[in-house]
Amino acid sequence: MNNSKYQSCIQACWECAQACEMCASSCLREEDVKAMARCIELDRDCADICSLAAVLMSRNSELAKEFCALCAKVCRACAEECEKHQMEHCQRCAEACRKCAEECERMAV
Amino acid sequence: MNNSKYQSCIQACWECAQACEMCASSCLREEDVKAMARCIELDRDCADICSLAAVLMSRNSELAKEFCALCAKVCRACAEECEKHQMEHCQRCAEACRKCAEECERMAV
Amino acid sequence: MNNSKYQSCIQACWECAQACEMCASSCLREEDVKAMARCIELDRDCADICSLAAVLMSRNSELAKEFCALCAKVCRACAEECEKHQMEHCQRCAEACRKCAEECERMAV
Amino acid sequence: MNNSKYQSCIQACWECAQACEMCASSCLREEDVKAMARCIELDRDCADICSLAAVLMSRNSELAKEFCALCAKVCRACAEECEKHQMEHCQRCAEACRKCAEECERMAV
Repeated sequence: MNNSKYQSCIQACWECAQACEMCASSCLREEDVKAMARCIELDRDCADICSLAAVLMSRNSELAKEFCALCAKVCRACAEECEKHQMEHCQRCAEACRKCAEECERMAV
Repeated sequence: MNNSKYQSCIQACWECAQACEMCASSCLREEDVKAMARCIELDRDCADICSLAAVLMSRNSELAKEFCALCAKVCRACAEECEKHQMEHCQRCAEACRKCAEECERMAV
Repeated sequence: MNNSKYQSCIQACWECAQACEMCASSCLREEDVKAMARCIELDRDCADICSLAAVLMSRNSELAKEFCALCAKVCRACAEECEKHQMEHCQRCAEACRKCAEECERMAV
Repeated sequence: MNNSKYQSCIQACWECAQACEMCASSCLREEDVKAMARCIELDRDCADICSLAAVLMSRNSELAKEFCALCAKVCRACAEECEKHQMEHCQRCAEACRKCAEECERMAV
């Protein structure tokens, strides 16, 4: 849609936010929800922080780079938890989180 | 990334949110900011509502359809205001808003 | 802090958002998380919608009244679910949701 | 409503978010909007970051402290800009931002 220097990072943040929202919802429908509690917690934080990161980059905020550094951290934590679980929603979420972390780390420099 | 029934609407909501955030920021840097005041106001509301619409659809919320109906309304209002202005950011935003309104109206049925 | 016509409704929305966030987190730490799955789902939606309702009223948005009508609905749904559970966090959340629903219904007229 | 260790900081974040949303809307209705452009920009970022800070604290997130450190920074920046302007909405916003910065700095330690 546009040529923002942030474009690929914005896209990665949105895809990560979506993967986290879907993962949390899917975790809540698993047989053993208790085993997924920490995954759900991190999904919620990661989704909200990724969404705001995308918004701040979209508006070219002077806070965007610093926010991306924080976003990368929560993405790393969420990826680490998600990759412990074999469900497809967790594996997809881990992948989206790792990709987003890489994009955010590049922006944060 | 996935096969949600909402996928094209989620994507349209995010693109609209981004277009609105960019439009608001660009309006604030125009020579005659005062002429853009209503555009900025609608951009802010439209961006926030589109973002939450995307989130609710991503998590397959039971509220998603009803929320999409409201989202379509604010997108229509924002498109109508933006298309009055000749700047590229307004024209792009109007287009993203109209596309998002159509997607949301289809979901809301 | 101020004399917005929306002030008591803004306050009720924030308190409801907080109660929902706390309830969801507490539900995730219960022994039988599975029994709380629908409560957590509604808490997430209700928290996000209440937060945005408070924001739209704070900025005196022309969408505020219509948004409050939708907010009241999700608050009623969340209260109904929460009051089924005996835990203090659910009972508190049900109370905050009912209060918020009443305030939002008054604003939505 | 509750006895979270974060309670006074959550309250300060919400009051700051509201003050920033009100300030941005009021700035857009000033005669000389152009002079308020940077104030509006910072209000938007500060409002969104304060809202998410309150949410993360409400859910007792492990990210809350680190997020508060970032929140304090944007509050300081917004206060510094707002206090340059004599309008009541800017003076109120500066005060809410300073109070929120202090609360967030205490939490961030």
